[in-house]
Amino acid sequence: MSSSPLISRLIEALRCLPGVGPKSAQRMAYYLLERQRQGAQTLSQTIIEALERVGHCRRCRTLSETEICSLCANQGREQHLLCVVESPADVETFEASTGYRGLYFVLMGHLSPLDGIGPADIGLDLLQQRLQAGEISEVVLASNATGEGEATAHYIAEMVQAMGITVSRLAHGIPLGGELEYTDADTLAHAFKGRQQI
Amino acid sequence: MSSSPLISRLIEALRCLPGVGPKSAQRMAYYLLERQRQGAQTLSQTIIEALERVGHCRRCRTLSETEICSLCANQGREQHLLCVVESPADVETFEASTGYRGLYFVLMGHLSPLDGIGPADIGLDLLQQRLQAGEISEVVLASNATGEGEATAHYIAEMVQAMGITVSRLAHGIPLGGELEYTDADTLAHAFKGRQQI
Repeated sequence: MSSSPLISRLIEALRCLPGVGPKSAQRMAYYLLERQRQGAQTLSQTIIEALERVGHCRRCRTLSETEICSLCANQGREQHLLCVVESPADVETFEASTGYRGLYFVLMGHLSPLDGIGPADIGLDLLQQRLQAGEISEVVLASNATGEGEATAHYIAEMVQAMGITVSRLAHGIPLGGELEYTDADTLAHAFKGRQQI
Repeated sequence: MSSSPLISRLIEALRCLPGVGPKSAQRMAYYLLERQRQGAQTLSQTIIEALERVGHCRRCRTLSETEICSLCANQGREQHLLCVVESPADVETFEASTGYRGLYFVLMGHLSPLDGIGPADIGLDLLQQRLQAGEISEVVLASNATGEGEATAHYIAEMVQAMGITVSRLAHGIPLGGELEYTDADTLAHAFKGRQQI
């Protein structure tokens, strides 16, 4: 790693970042110490502040430094629409690319019985309370189109339907710009099944 | 970025890391807050400690948390051989891959008149003092094989020769495993010029 024990420790610490292997961590450590001390200072202070202050929104469970996040607190959003996503990053993606103006509920994961992640771990008790309060008239399931995401959507759909609330799922199909020839079989089968009359 | 100002600041701060764009920074921020709080804590503390304690070795200029780095302080190294490299990372690379047992001198950059980086900025005054002390009998120039690295090596070679000390440069040529067909013209010309009798 490095002949300096402290630099070795810094390289090791940088490896906690996702996608950072030993070589990038080394490059980052030297870069910070040689050329970006100011940035490193800001980074360490911001990490400490974020760890101290960022928790979960009490309404939607997303990461937030306020008890109620800015989206939940925004009375201008449609209060009867609730979009269920897996992670805070999904909220940002949704906000950036769709015209959606309703509210969110963030699972912070997905059901995964093999890993011991059950309904309570992804906040479904909180979701149920929220739906029982009666303000929500439609739930949009926007968990990932992966095996776990689908299973999670299926589980939540049954729960929501049992409460007599409308539930929908994001459409699956061929991505825009996608060519038929290079579309995988599952996606194509989905796209065919979900064909819409024009 | 994020609907939370503090998370947006964390994403921005992470971008001081080399090779980290807006999307990776976002991924890193959420990852640290959702799943790696312990690692983030360690990272921030290690950065602070490194910024406080890591400076430059007084003898070779490499990054070190001690006044004299461990390599310079090691009396078991050959005290008459001095390898000149551009950066602390180069020292590690050299240590990891060659059997070199001499000492190092780290320029912390290369000559670059256009950027206003002259001999004093890369410590050549310190190098000269070191050579005048008389312990060094051979200087190995191991700056990069780039334009600036070559120019820097050339400049130092003249200085060292003027003092009557032996000076050598790392060999240039075709990398091991390299195919002739895919070797660039400059490298091939160098390899031909530097051909060795067998």
